[in-house]
Amino acid sequence: MQILVLGGDGYLGWPTALHLSARGHDVGVCDNFARRGYDEEMGVESLVPIASLDERVAAWNEISGKTISSYVGDLCDARFVHQMVGDFRPDTIVHFGEQRAAPYSMIDQAHAVYTQTNNIVGTLNVMYAIADTDRDIHLVKLGTMGEYGTPNIDIEEGWITIEHNGRSDRVMYPKRPGSFYHLSKVHDSHNIEFGCRIWGMRATDLNQGVVYGADTEQTKLDPRLATRFDYDGVFGTVLNRMVIQAVLADPLTVYGNGSQTRGLINIVDTVECIRLAAENPADRGEFRVFNQLTELLSVKQIAETVAREYPGECTIEHVDNPRVEQEDHYYNPKHIALVDLGLQPRLLSTTLIDQLFDVVERYRDRIAPPAIMPTVSWRETASRLPSAAPAMVGGRR
Amino acid sequence: MQILVLGGDGYLGWPTALHLSARGHDVGVCDNFARRGYDEEMGVESLVPIASLDERVAAWNEISGKTISSYVGDLCDARFVHQMVGDFRPDTIVHFGEQRAAPYSMIDQAHAVYTQTNNIVGTLNVMYAIADTDRDIHLVKLGTMGEYGTPNIDIEEGWITIEHNGRSDRVMYPKRPGSFYHLSKVHDSHNIEFGCRIWGMRATDLNQGVVYGADTEQTKLDPRLATRFDYDGVFGTVLNRMVIQAVLADPLTVYGNGSQTRGLINIVDTVECIRLAAENPADRGEFRVFNQLTELLSVKQIAETVAREYPGECTIEHVDNPRVEQEDHYYNPKHIALVDLGLQPRLLSTTLIDQLFDVVERYRDRIAPPAIMPTVSWRETASRLPSAAPAMVGGRR
Repeated sequence: MQILVLGGDGYLGWPTALHLSARGHDVGVCDNFARRGYDEEMGVESLVPIASLDERVAAWNEISGKTISSYVGDLCDARFVHQMVGDFRPDTIVHFGEQRAAPYSMIDQAHAVYTQTNNIVGTLNVMYAIADTDRDIHLVKLGTMGEYGTPNIDIEEGWITIEHNGRSDRVMYPKRPGSFYHLSKVHDSHNIEFGCRIWGMRATDLNQGVVYGADTEQTKLDPRLATRFDYDGVFGTVLNRMVIQAVLADPLTVYGNGSQTRGLINIVDTVECIRLAAENPADRGEFRVFNQLTELLSVKQIAETVAREYPGECTIEHVDNPRVEQEDHYYNPKHIALVDLGLQPRLLSTTLIDQLFDVVERYRDRIAPPAIMPTVSWRETASRLPSAAPAMVGGRR
Repeated sequence: MQILVLGGDGYLGWPTALHLSARGHDVGVCDNFARRGYDEEMGVESLVPIASLDERVAAWNEISGKTISSYVGDLCDARFVHQMVGDFRPDTIVHFGEQRAAPYSMIDQAHAVYTQTNNIVGTLNVMYAIADTDRDIHLVKLGTMGEYGTPNIDIEEGWITIEHNGRSDRVMYPKRPGSFYHLSKVHDSHNIEFGCRIWGMRATDLNQGVVYGADTEQTKLDPRLATRFDYDGVFGTVLNRMVIQAVLADPLTVYGNGSQTRGLINIVDTVECIRLAAENPADRGEFRVFNQLTELLSVKQIAETVAREYPGECTIEHVDNPRVEQEDHYYNPKHIALVDLGLQPRLLSTTLIDQLFDVVERYRDRIAPPAIMPTVSWRETASRLPSAAPAMVGGRR
């Protein structure tokens, strides 16, 4: 199968490309290196050193004998997207190519607008390229469990049948997300569902939980195949960040009371979910949604798990929650569809956490402790316009 | 009350500004004249000649003795929005300032992307200006009934209580709109609801039906106060367009079988709804939704009403539906909240239609018949990239 991985240089895009290539697919990757640029902007870097895309692709060819094509360009450039899709002629497009950090989207007005336009326009361009080139192409789009928020009812997989005033309908599951980033994915989902209706597109929307882990079967074959590992307050996700704090003998920081519960998934299961979705495409006109997580843990439980497994001393500290989110809430997301397709989940275990401690120990001299704490406040986010603003464009008459 | 009307030069923005000014409010209007630009782009113009914004504002001052401030600029320019809000210090912002035609958004990739970025970014900038300047400002945002689509259950006003698997929650009403334009309003609604949660913003989202009519109490005082009247296949709405066809002795064109049902509202009721929403603000942190329509009619019923009322010969013709929409469907939107605030609806009547015939007769030599028929197909919309495309930016390696 021809599979094009958008955002194929990123934390999950690159391991996904490797996994699909290893399983015999003809893989292309596309990236504009925006994620590497955010590192420069924020003054942080991946804990694990990562090779350039060219080096990665060359190393994979050397090790596996397989070729991954690469396209360098911006999904917001419609002509680039159109020509890439026409050139590669994918059966499946796996779309990781979005700004994916909630705190980054909440820095200020400019970052909120950037996140929403980048993500929405990129996805619209991919949809139009499919509509123009071949409406049979299956779009596998990465969403997030954060799109749903924390409703007081069970979370179904994307659609829900509502009984109301004696009538019934199957509707898109109502969403109430918690950042401008998460909102951008909600917007994408609505746009893609519409594309399925008007163009008969095939789409799978993967609402992914919080991913943890540093390695897959392929990334550990060679240091040049490693994927990034983020632990900073903006791009780092909770479990990876806490492992770092443990190794540094810092307290594990829990936002608020820590009872907020999230779906988690190991990086190895993530790449397998993508393979399963790609190899079992949605029907023509179908907007299919899978909840891509394997287990539920509260933030406090994650901290307790890390503390329990870490061989040294480990304490837990509660800090003011920089986000606006419910802490004590009901949370019961269904996640059956991917298991039905054959996913065999690897749950959080001593083995998996030990591997993470090993990775962090190996690169501990690369850790920049000041980067770990949250710096972005949901309530305080503001325009941060330059104080020396030039004259207003236009003006009061 | 200080009220700033964004898009205050448009079909509804201008009459709203006049109505609010007549009722004693201190009104400012903002516009970037994008709507006048679309006329140039499409090669069409308003049936009723319209004065420039400066002429309108001067005429209103001459006639009423009241002053309307005007700001000329683009809501996508964050600095302009910020400075305008800081300068005018509104109690209420009424936001009409968006690209508002479904067919325009469906022309091609560029128009879809323009519509979504223009509408989403403009609204985000307004939200940030409120968050920075004064979180007490009430945002009255124009949405559309088209956001809901045509679900098989009753349409509530923005929120719905769902019982599911023995539990219950009040959630945002699920939406499934029918164009990239309507989707942009769904995206806005989600963004604004989030702003209410994180910043304690006050917001009223007005899901408006199809507006018809040419005049309000104020616009008819002087030709320089007239508002635009669109009848073309892109910006014209169904009732106004059919009145033109009747006067031209052309068949009234019904898309598909015409059983698709829509909510309607007269322009006089629209401006009154805005006044009621502004004078009865949402609470701090409240995302309040009103369905702003006064009656339901199928497209076929609208055509039959126009044909019955027109004094001359009048036939009805069914044409292929250029849109992708359900034709035979359940439709029961609630619209109680504005009546509870005091709205006294003016339903479609002989008097109202006669006034429209008069307006059209007066300007019939300005009608461009070729503009009336639909030119944009939902299924065919595509990237329309220039055939002489330059080399791909970036490239396959």
